[in-house]
Amino acid sequence: IKSKLPDTMLSIFTQMSALAEKHQAINLSQGFPNYPASPELIALVNTYMQKGYNQYAPMAGMMALRERIAQKIDVMYGLDVHPETEITITAGATQAIFTAIATLIRPGDEVIIFEPAYDSYRPSVELFGGKVVPIRLLAPDFKIDWESVRAAVTDKTRLLIINNPNNPSTKMLRRDDLMQLESLLKQSEAFLLSDEVYEHIVFDNRAHETILAYPSLRERSYVVASFGKLLHTTGWKLGYVIAPSVLTNEFRKVHQFNVFSANTPMQLAIADYLKNSDNYLSLPSFFQEKRDFLTQGLQGSPLRVINSESTYFLLVDYSAVSQLSEFDFAKYLTEHYAVATIPVSAFYSASCEQNLVRICFAKDQTTLAKAIDLLHKIV
Amino acid sequence: IKSKLPDTMLSIFTQMSALAEKHQAINLSQGFPNYPASPELIALVNTYMQKGYNQYAPMAGMMALRERIAQKIDVMYGLDVHPETEITITAGATQAIFTAIATLIRPGDEVIIFEPAYDSYRPSVELFGGKVVPIRLLAPDFKIDWESVRAAVTDKTRLLIINNPNNPSTKMLRRDDLMQLESLLKQSEAFLLSDEVYEHIVFDNRAHETILAYPSLRERSYVVASFGKLLHTTGWKLGYVIAPSVLTNEFRKVHQFNVFSANTPMQLAIADYLKNSDNYLSLPSFFQEKRDFLTQGLQGSPLRVINSESTYFLLVDYSAVSQLSEFDFAKYLTEHYAVATIPVSAFYSASCEQNLVRICFAKDQTTLAKAIDLLHKIV
Ligand SMILES: CSCCC(=O)C(=O)O
Ligand SMILES: CSCCC(=O)C(=O)O
Repeated sequence: IKSKLPDTMLSIFTQMSALAEKHQAINLSQGFPNYPASPELIALVNTYMQKGYNQYAPMAGMMALRERIAQKIDVMYGLDVHPETEITITAGATQAIFTAIATLIRPGDEVIIFEPAYDSYRPSVELFGGKVVPIRLLAPDFKIDWESVRAAVTDKTRLLIINNPNNPSTKMLRRDDLMQLESLLKQSEAFLLSDEVYEHIVFDNRAHETILAYPSLRERSYVVASFGKLLHTTGWKLGYVIAPSVLTNEFRKVHQFNVFSANTPMQLAIADYLKNSDNYLSLPSFFQEKRDFLTQGLQGSPLRVINSESTYFLLVDYSAVSQLSEFDFAKYLTEHYAVATIPVSAFYSASCEQNLVRICFAKDQTTLAKAIDLLHKIV
Repeated sequence: IKSKLPDTMLSIFTQMSALAEKHQAINLSQGFPNYPASPELIALVNTYMQKGYNQYAPMAGMMALRERIAQKIDVMYGLDVHPETEITITAGATQAIFTAIATLIRPGDEVIIFEPAYDSYRPSVELFGGKVVPIRLLAPDFKIDWESVRAAVTDKTRLLIINNPNNPSTKMLRRDDLMQLESLLKQSEAFLLSDEVYEHIVFDNRAHETILAYPSLRERSYVVASFGKLLHTTGWKLGYVIAPSVLTNEFRKVHQFNVFSANTPMQLAIADYLKNSDNYLSLPSFFQEKRDFLTQGLQGSPLRVINSESTYFLLVDYSAVSQLSEFDFAKYLTEHYAVATIPVSAFYSASCEQNLVRICFAKDQTTLAKAIDLLHKIV
C-alpha cells in the first residue's frame, strides 16, 4: 500500500509515553493531569448513564451543553455566541481541528502554520492535498514577525492556523498581534483556525486574547476549545468548535460523517457541572502554583527554565549539561533519570535544535517534587 | 465559502429524529435502543472514572479491550486476530469508516458502493476527491449481480465498500457472494471496507459471513465493528477496526490526527464487562423476538412487511395505502400517525422509489405495541 502520509510516524506523544512506561519513568511528556477529576462531575456522568442517557446525542451536540458554553463565553469574555448555529460539540479538540481542516482544504491550497506547532496540523492538511507553509518562530521569544507572515500569504492561501496560548512555546498573542492579523487578512480571502485549548491556563494576570473578540477575524474563523483541558479529563475526548453559522454549517456536514456525534452522558454531565461551577476561573492560580513550584524547584539544577506564560508546560534549556539533540536528550533523560519530556524539535517540520525539552507540570505536588529531585541529579 | 460537500444536507437520521421530536412521535427512524444498557456495565464505567482513569487512552486503544475483542472473535468465528497490530479502537464505527476512507482514497480514485448504502460512505469518499460508483440493488431481494460488479471494476477502482449484514435491506451476504468477491478481487488491486456493525444481530439461525474468515479478502480489508450495537450504547461512541498490520499502520497514522484516541473509562469498562459476559451470543434471540412481535403485529395493517434477515430494522411496503414518495410518506406518518420511520430512498444516490420505509425495532415491548396500534390506523 502506497502511504498517503509517508513521512508520518507514531506521534511524539505516543512514542514518549511508551518510552516512559518502558522505563518506569515519571511521564512529564504527553500533556495530561495525573490528579483526580471532580468527584461531582464523575457522579453526574454516573447519574446520566443510570437514567438511560446512553444513546446518540444530536449530531451538533446536546443543547444543554451548548447553552452552558455560551454562558461561559459570556462570563469569560462578555461575548455572545449562539448555541444553535455557532457551537458544535466534538470528540475532542483534535477532532475539531481535523474536521475544520477537512471542511476547508482542497488539493493545492496553502496553509500557513506557525512553528513550533502541534503535530496534528501538518499531516491533517496534507491528507487533503494542502501544502503547509511553515513560519518558524524561535526561542526564547518565539515572536511573530508579521512582515514575514504577510510575505508568505499568496492567493492560494486558504487557511492560517494559530495556537493561542501556544503549546509548546507557552507564548500568548498580544492585542497588537491580533491587530496585525486583522490588517493582514483584510487583503485576503483566507480563513483562520484558532486553536485556543489552553485559553483558561494563563499566568501572571495575562489576559487571553480570543479571536472571538475580533469581529473581522471571528467572521472567518473556527475557534477550537477543549473540555479535557478545562476539567482535567483528557480521556473523555470532548471539545467544541465555535464558528459563524455559515462556517458551522459546512463544519457539521463533515462532522456528521466523521464521527456523527460525541459522548452523550458525558456531555450532559459537563453541562450540569458547569451550571453550578465556575471552577475554570481558578485554573490560572491552580496551574500557576504548579508552574512556580517546578520553576523554583529547578533552580540550581543544570536545566535553565524559560518562563512559562501559559499552558501546563514549560521549556527548559539543557545547554549547560549536554550537546545531544533534543530527541536524544529526551530519550536519555527518560532512560537514565526516569523523567520523560518532549523534545521541542518535534514541533518543527525541518530540523531545529535549540537544546530545549518541554515539561508538563499538570501533576500532583508529589510527582513534581520527585521529578525535581531526579532532574537535579543530571550530570 | 464554496462548499466541499455542496450536495450534502443534514443527514436523514438527524432530520427524522428532529421531526419525531417536533411531533412527539414514536421515533422508529434513527437506529438506537430505547431500553436500558446493562447496569453492571454502567457500574464499571463509574468505577473506572472514580479510580482516576480519565486521561488519554493509548492512541490505538486500551490493550485490555483489544485483547477482549480478539477473544470475542475467537469465540464467535474461531479466528485469530492480533490485538497489538490488527485492532484499533475508534470513536464509533462511523469514525472507523471515515478514517479508513481517509487512509485509502486520493483524488480520482473510484469506490464501488452497493446501494442502498449507509449515508456516510459517499460524502466521505467525495471529501477526499474519490468518485463513487454505485451499484444499485432493489427490493425485495437486493441481490448482487456479480457480473455487473465485475463490469464496474476499472484500474482506478481503489476500494469496494460492503455492509454485511446490510442496513437498511437487512440482507446478508452468502458464502457464494464472498467467493464471487474473492474471484473478482484476484484481478484487482482494490481494497475492501467491510462494515459489519450488525454482525451479532442475525435471525433464523443464519450465520454471519465475516470477511475475516476469507484470507484472500482479509489481507486487503478494513473490517469495522460497533460497541454501540453490541451493548445498546450508541451514545458512547465506541467501535473498532480490524485490519492486517500494514493496513492498520496506515489507518493509525490518520486516526492519531483525526481523534487521537477514544474514551478511556468506557473502553476499560467494556473490556471488564466482556470478560464476564458473552451476552452477545444472545443478541440474535433478543432481537428476533422484537422482529417477530413487530412483524406479527403489523399483520392486517396496510403495511406489508418484508421479512427481516438481520439488523434491528425491517422494511415495510406501503403501496396498498399511499402513492406518496417515500420521503413524503415518512413525513406523513410522523405528522399524522406519530410514528417516525426512514424513507429507503435516502440510502440511494439517485432517485429510487419503491414505496418502502424502514422501521427500527430496537425498542421495548410497550413502545413497539404502541407503534403497532398507530400503524394499524393508517388509511
Ligand atoms: C493528544 S496527545 C498530546 C497532548 C498534548 O496536547 C500535548 O502533549 O501537547
Ligand atoms: C449515526 S445515526 C444512524 C444510526 C444508524 O445506523 C441508522 O439509523 O441507520
